[in-house]
Amino acid sequence: MIYNMDTLYEAVAAKGPVCVGLDTVADYIPPAERRKAASEAGAILAFNLALIDGTADAAACYKVQIACYEALGLAGLETYAKTLRCIRERGIPVIADIKRGDIADMALRYAAAHFSGDFEADFVTLSPYMGMDSIEPWLSWADKAGKGAFVLMRTSNRGMRDFEYQELKSGGRLYDAVGTKLAELAAGRSGVHGYGVFGAVIGCTEREEAAAIRKKGRNLFFLIPGYGAQGGAAEDAALLLCDGNGGVVNASRSLLRAWMPAAAEEDPDRVNNVRAAEAARRALIEMRDAIRAAAGPAKT
Amino acid sequence: MIYNMDTLYEAVAAKGPVCVGLDTVADYIPPAERRKAASEAGAILAFNLALIDGTADAAACYKVQIACYEALGLAGLETYAKTLRCIRERGIPVIADIKRGDIADMALRYAAAHFSGDFEADFVTLSPYMGMDSIEPWLSWADKAGKGAFVLMRTSNRGMRDFEYQELKSGGRLYDAVGTKLAELAAGRSGVHGYGVFGAVIGCTEREEAAAIRKKGRNLFFLIPGYGAQGGAAEDAALLLCDGNGGVVNASRSLLRAWMPAAAEEDPDRVNNVRAAEAARRALIEMRDAIRAAAGPAKT
Repeated sequence: MIYNMDTLYEAVAAKGPVCVGLDTVADYIPPAERRKAASEAGAILAFNLALIDGTADAAACYKVQIACYEALGLAGLETYAKTLRCIRERGIPVIADIKRGDIADMALRYAAAHFSGDFEADFVTLSPYMGMDSIEPWLSWADKAGKGAFVLMRTSNRGMRDFEYQELKSGGRLYDAVGTKLAELAAGRSGVHGYGVFGAVIGCTEREEAAAIRKKGRNLFFLIPGYGAQGGAAEDAALLLCDGNGGVVNASRSLLRAWMPAAAEEDPDRVNNVRAAEAARRALIEMRDAIRAAAGPAKT
Repeated sequence: MIYNMDTLYEAVAAKGPVCVGLDTVADYIPPAERRKAASEAGAILAFNLALIDGTADAAACYKVQIACYEALGLAGLETYAKTLRCIRERGIPVIADIKRGDIADMALRYAAAHFSGDFEADFVTLSPYMGMDSIEPWLSWADKAGKGAFVLMRTSNRGMRDFEYQELKSGGRLYDAVGTKLAELAAGRSGVHGYGVFGAVIGCTEREEAAAIRKKGRNLFFLIPGYGAQGGAAEDAALLLCDGNGGVVNASRSLLRAWMPAAAEEDPDRVNNVRAAEAARRALIEMRDAIRAAAGPAKT
């Protein structure tokens, strides 16, 4: 079995650690393209396809945030399905950012939903609140189809201090307890590059803890949000990598809206999706190079 | 503003505390009906509509588990949307069991998804792992449209011991910390019956803690899973109510599959959806009466 986590590792080695987050909403789309589209869901699909086309050579993977698509109902989810399909047809790994978490039999239903059929992705994100019996059922898809997951451990929002940061009587914080369970999972099910087939979500917003988290979660591949708009810098992200690999750093707004500053100086109506994608690619390359400079070149 | 939580309270006073869980999967549908349907999603829709028709007079509300529908892709979500619409058209409260939880701007997208449009429900379930900034954005819909939510606090699965049960250095368990935050929310935003417009999910599987949880969460309306198939009894559920109100007790499998034992003694092919719904109604009434007997009559 070739695990998707190995494919992702190899993509990072070849293309750098940037994950392009397709948290696409109407406001991010050039106005001329919005007017041209028959519907909001249609406008988002056209924008996504152009973005993928323009960034495929430099993106390690894509992450598609389902909330943006669910918000538009059935039409939005059709766009979601088509976006995933377009990425997978190019052989690029795609992470479904769904943050699901439910009891075991429902976990299996959700896994069928997001690892096969209309919404098939290569990876999902999961929420651990209900415990490991809400996570483990998803693992059956690792051996069946190579699928992987990233479990929320320490996120990049301010509210993470409410519960994730709670200190436990048994030592460490709640997110450490989640990390320990995930490292156990990883020890039991790893790919050829030494990383567990399930990894963890670690925001790059808290520099002082990064080295300890990386050391403790040596065998965990990280999905790293919080870069750019949320405050994380290249140096913060680099601390969560390991020889430039072992993680992907997500950026969404800073890439999708990269066309805006230049457009503000001329007629924004002249910007189309292709130009937006070119601007996203330039921003992606800049981000990748900044992380590479901070982390050193990726080990191959 | 009439809050949905008040409407739900009044439904419990009038009809008892049973929430019918439409976690419908193909295996629960009489074989003759499954064969008749053009698709799995179509079979589930027909079953749901019959079930709703047969139980509407005795159900306080319905809970629809989206995992069962997501598993069937776009067609499944169309059935999900139609099921919600059928319940809302009857003026009965419906809970979307979605357990979403994401950063603030995504919480707003999810809220738009599940409080308006194709997937509009009266209540949702939410997961608190990421903190209160993943919960609070949903609250804007309480004042805008009366909407409510139930936040996972202590669930009914075995895995809840992994994290929800972790003892905190500051005292209490993780689920207590969640409860404290929810009680604060409830204190700030309550309906006419004294319950917060957002409540909590509390499984009825741990009898020894029930009285303390009920006492501490005096102003929290509870969504109570774990009855029946998961091991909770009427007495356990009753301990989480308050004068027979202040909570709804969910049952799914035990109602949806209620037609099976009788069918096993004759030709199961003779059972149709209407008979399945009649069996579900009988099981519902029995459950309601058992909880009422244990809790005393509902205060009106």
